[in-house]
Amino acid sequence: MTPTGFSVFNRKDRASVDTLRLLAVDMVEKAKSGHPGFPLGAAPMAYVLWTRFLKHDPQRPDWPDRDRFVLSAGHGSALLYAFLCLSGYGLTMDDLKNFRQWESLTPGHPERGVTPGVEATTGPLGHGLAMGVGLALAERNLAKRFNRPNFKLFDHHTYALVSDGDLMEGVGSEAASLAGNQGLGKLIYIYDSNDMTIEGHAGLTFSEDVRARFAAYNWHVSLVSDVGDLQSIKVALDKAKQETERPTLIICRTKLGAGSPKEDTPGAHGEPLGAEGLAATRAHYGYGDRGPFFVDERVAEHFKERAQAHVETRKKWEETLAEYEKKYPEEGRELKRRLLGSVPDSLAPDLKEAAKTVFAKDSQVATRVASGKVLNVLAKSLPELIGGSADLAPSNKTVIDGEEFLSALTPGGRNIHFGVREQGMGAILNGLALHGGFIPFGGTFLVFSDFVRPAVRLSALMSLKVVYVFTHDSVGVGEDGPTHQPVEHLAALRAMPNLLVLRPADAFETAAAWEVAVTHQGPSCLILSRQNLPVLTPEKYPHLHEGVFKGAYVLSEAPNQDPQAIVIASGSEVHLALAAQELLKDRLGVRVVSIPSWELFASQPPDYVEKVLPAKITKRLAVEAGRSLGYERFVGLNGKILSIDSFGHSAPAGVIFEKLGFTPDNVARLVDSLFE
Amino acid sequence: MTPTGFSVFNRKDRASVDTLRLLAVDMVEKAKSGHPGFPLGAAPMAYVLWTRFLKHDPQRPDWPDRDRFVLSAGHGSALLYAFLCLSGYGLTMDDLKNFRQWESLTPGHPERGVTPGVEATTGPLGHGLAMGVGLALAERNLAKRFNRPNFKLFDHHTYALVSDGDLMEGVGSEAASLAGNQGLGKLIYIYDSNDMTIEGHAGLTFSEDVRARFAAYNWHVSLVSDVGDLQSIKVALDKAKQETERPTLIICRTKLGAGSPKEDTPGAHGEPLGAEGLAATRAHYGYGDRGPFFVDERVAEHFKERAQAHVETRKKWEETLAEYEKKYPEEGRELKRRLLGSVPDSLAPDLKEAAKTVFAKDSQVATRVASGKVLNVLAKSLPELIGGSADLAPSNKTVIDGEEFLSALTPGGRNIHFGVREQGMGAILNGLALHGGFIPFGGTFLVFSDFVRPAVRLSALMSLKVVYVFTHDSVGVGEDGPTHQPVEHLAALRAMPNLLVLRPADAFETAAAWEVAVTHQGPSCLILSRQNLPVLTPEKYPHLHEGVFKGAYVLSEAPNQDPQAIVIASGSEVHLALAAQELLKDRLGVRVVSIPSWELFASQPPDYVEKVLPAKITKRLAVEAGRSLGYERFVGLNGKILSIDSFGHSAPAGVIFEKLGFTPDNVARLVDSLFE
Repeated sequence: MTPTGFSVFNRKDRASVDTLRLLAVDMVEKAKSGHPGFPLGAAPMAYVLWTRFLKHDPQRPDWPDRDRFVLSAGHGSALLYAFLCLSGYGLTMDDLKNFRQWESLTPGHPERGVTPGVEATTGPLGHGLAMGVGLALAERNLAKRFNRPNFKLFDHHTYALVSDGDLMEGVGSEAASLAGNQGLGKLIYIYDSNDMTIEGHAGLTFSEDVRARFAAYNWHVSLVSDVGDLQSIKVALDKAKQETERPTLIICRTKLGAGSPKEDTPGAHGEPLGAEGLAATRAHYGYGDRGPFFVDERVAEHFKERAQAHVETRKKWEETLAEYEKKYPEEGRELKRRLLGSVPDSLAPDLKEAAKTVFAKDSQVATRVASGKVLNVLAKSLPELIGGSADLAPSNKTVIDGEEFLSALTPGGRNIHFGVREQGMGAILNGLALHGGFIPFGGTFLVFSDFVRPAVRLSALMSLKVVYVFTHDSVGVGEDGPTHQPVEHLAALRAMPNLLVLRPADAFETAAAWEVAVTHQGPSCLILSRQNLPVLTPEKYPHLHEGVFKGAYVLSEAPNQDPQAIVIASGSEVHLALAAQELLKDRLGVRVVSIPSWELFASQPPDYVEKVLPAKITKRLAVEAGRSLGYERFVGLNGKILSIDSFGHSAPAGVIFEKLGFTPDNVARLVDSLFE
Repeated sequence: MTPTGFSVFNRKDRASVDTLRLLAVDMVEKAKSGHPGFPLGAAPMAYVLWTRFLKHDPQRPDWPDRDRFVLSAGHGSALLYAFLCLSGYGLTMDDLKNFRQWESLTPGHPERGVTPGVEATTGPLGHGLAMGVGLALAERNLAKRFNRPNFKLFDHHTYALVSDGDLMEGVGSEAASLAGNQGLGKLIYIYDSNDMTIEGHAGLTFSEDVRARFAAYNWHVSLVSDVGDLQSIKVALDKAKQETERPTLIICRTKLGAGSPKEDTPGAHGEPLGAEGLAATRAHYGYGDRGPFFVDERVAEHFKERAQAHVETRKKWEETLAEYEKKYPEEGRELKRRLLGSVPDSLAPDLKEAAKTVFAKDSQVATRVASGKVLNVLAKSLPELIGGSADLAPSNKTVIDGEEFLSALTPGGRNIHFGVREQGMGAILNGLALHGGFIPFGGTFLVFSDFVRPAVRLSALMSLKVVYVFTHDSVGVGEDGPTHQPVEHLAALRAMPNLLVLRPADAFETAAAWEVAVTHQGPSCLILSRQNLPVLTPEKYPHLHEGVFKGAYVLSEAPNQDPQAIVIASGSEVHLALAAQELLKDRLGVRVVSIPSWELFASQPPDYVEKVLPAKITKRLAVEAGRSLGYERFVGLNGKILSIDSFGHSAPAGVIFEKLGFTPDNVARLVDSLFE
């Protein structure tokens, strides 16, 4: 470590910082759209972090032990792209010039999977900060599981640049509190404290003492009073690395749009500087005579050189891994498999058999209870399963038996107490999934999926394998009443692109739903009942397991005759459909279709869809204890839907179902009415 | 004020506290469902607050200058109901015995509108805390507007009981930070610090220093180390009332389930104590020989007496109001009207005329810009309009020109800077609406409606007149990319019961949508475009204004012939439909139906629906730049939907629309294809 007061930085560093700045504003100008303010203000701290601390190798963006960097202030994407380009991540100058254009590698906000070197999709404020907490938990957990004497496979830091908005958003507060509780010593955030928001000076709404707040969360907090002092930034980061028992927040005073005519005004945030403003900015940094996208050769060389800094470390790591695989073959295989994100081939048959044993004696079981049992079966073959609940574990059944709860003292735990922090939980699950090596799961009541929703959207945008366990799935919640009874949530989740929504009807469908979830490359929601439901045995219903994989299937064909009507139902309402089928069997052939997942059904070939829902059978009733929205696609303009289209009621569940017409008799009556 | 150490409380008070406790656990036991832990632990502090501080009159639960009390820990409802019953709010012992039963006055969580004396629907944690901030802002604002020398019409406090969960939830953090910033001296919260959550000791996830955190937010924080010490609670509340420049948090150490066998264990939280546990609890409090629902006569008398404490004050207030109305007739009329929640009769014709003037010269205007103009027209006749944006005012166009921004120094402001705190904003809007006297509005990007959603749900549950201004309503957002482009949000909002979703197609529909929103008793969302849209003149489209009130209407009939096909569209896509109609006019009669609101259309009589969408015209195309979910109800199984069913893209808006087929040519082609 260099002593304070003696700077290791020189003119080349200053030129490098200014190059990042100007490339970023050039990109914004060329795109006629974007955010010049953050790059101009934050470039120095980003530069010091990226070139002097970040352990990375542009040739191997997927090196498992790389430091993770999250640009929580996602609107500063141009700055990050400039750095990735100069560091050899495969972005060209043309890519920078293509900023924010159709199918470019440089979209408006960083998108994981689009740009090499981008660790997380950011933009919705607070979420980058919170995902970083998941990344840091992941590193600590993997280190505990896999490191061995002389084999430090996992030993990296998680860094982020965060902004005022990240600290104002509730999700950021939730995650910061939990990070302090967990004592995440390898989590290091730099806060771009520019005191400016879109509506004006941050003090208008954000006058709190951030330093004291984060200290209260058990963070180590330090201050850099002038972002231009690169040496101070380095010292602060050195100290942050020395702190091993608390996360660090470095508050760095910056000026939004530094060096531009709009410096320190809200106008610098979100629109191009304009030709004149850009010229003035260029002149301010001493590049008045240069054109756009200019990079001095020495600067280019300097970035390339810095990008080599960890190549040897990375190579050494790969050698270590190879030796590790010889010495610890079992751990080595597990690690490889987990990092690849594949599951053992034996998983599916094992699970199907296990389900038969697990549920052999149950005639009635709530699907949330079934889910808990399946989770525990899966957890044995899938050590990468890690998760918990937002303080509802006893209700959500999300505990892996016999495993520790994650904490600073038990960093290898696979159970996580998230506290009453649903959105923070979702973001942390995303972070765990982003890191690699995990299938994270998290539970809450379905009604509170609203709180998690912004995180679910990011899971879906990034196609992360995250399993959301949403229990207490309808007015079946009962006495807790409308604040706790989901009515619109199934429809709202189905509205989200790239999200699998699975609402199993019984224990066996639940087992299949979990199997879908852990093998699908993307997020899934399991929608589970609070109340007991009959167990439908595979003997009587042979497609019970496989049917789930197709999204919808003929659970029970009309007995002794051709089907004249179809009842389509999901979850607990499937049993109503079966009961109505039974009531009507002597005079009407009713086919019961179980539809656990609209998304899976939508991906089936047309002939399968026609087999399940033949066009000629137009007498169709859908039954679901939630809003009807969208069921018209299955029943058509002439069909009927038994649904709940207003908020729920506080009363015992059975009473509510009866009052709202969710009875076998009423379902049978509605089927009859299709023929009137 | 009584000096510390000399208690004003006596044995009757202790008996009263224990009566509240035991009534609450009796209710839970009888219902076989509910939460005994909170009432047992928190009864003393609730008792002192309710009987010694709360300015209220059970005979006039709607007295405008009453203190507001919010049970943010809504699961403690039984405690509140016991108090309301004993205080004469019209709840009988039978109502208590009917706890959590169908259509009882005592639902599982407090529900505003169901139980007299319940100020807010609570249960989703963090929201009670945050709504209280809105209630306090409301009081301060009304005081500034209406109080005159010797006429202190508004001078009340806002109290809440908050729990660990409220402090863990991000929405609570957002609101607490803003409350400190606003210096809400009349906001007083008691924190039930029982160190216990459902999953175990709160320290498992919540080890932060709450005292330091709230001090960092600029709150006055005090500590009561033993909730059993009624005098200490009183002293803390006295001090809180003396503090006029900061909100107060009184941290009160309690024990979950105090006095029960489950004391200080998570098991005390959410299930009945059981016969044995209840007997032991009763014995603990010295009522071992009494049956359930026992109330000692002296205790009953004592509560009745305390409930009279403010009757004189209330009567005096009414006299003051009567005098005020004589002396300040204009203010008096405004106040009366605002508290009734009615709007001036002249509003509708005024607005319609104003729209013609305001938009006379515009040929193109983004509906967000139109909304800003309409808001400013409305704000002149509706001084109760108050609101702002979650740091996106320049984009959301949510500023009332010429009015101050709300702050401690300008408490009468009608503009509010909410900071980057969407969910907190929503909850605060709910609080403003709950208080009475306001029509609150709040803006953010539509994509971030996910963050606000839990608050929107509470607006809908309580039927509060809150206007959500969601701008940047589709991939029309352009370069900011998929994190900022709503695709699923229209469908997700339409899924919510009791919520009006309005997506106007142009400036005039926007004016009508605002008129709907401010006259509708319930929440509305305005879904507005970022991009410019043609202004459809009332001359050419005579139903442009009135049509919005019906939800859907024939905007443009097939020219020169009977309609053979219908194109149904909302918002910006209406213009595509019109362009396609024009392209096809020589060979195909196409009717264009604008559908700004599904909910309003659903409430029309069948003959109107048939007029707009005649059953015989089965060739139907829906066009909307979002997910198709639910449009099948309008187009049927044989119709088509031009929609966006995956996430968006970062590129200029025009490019995205073209790539995704949102062009007049493609719409015309799709109409043609209906006839193939």
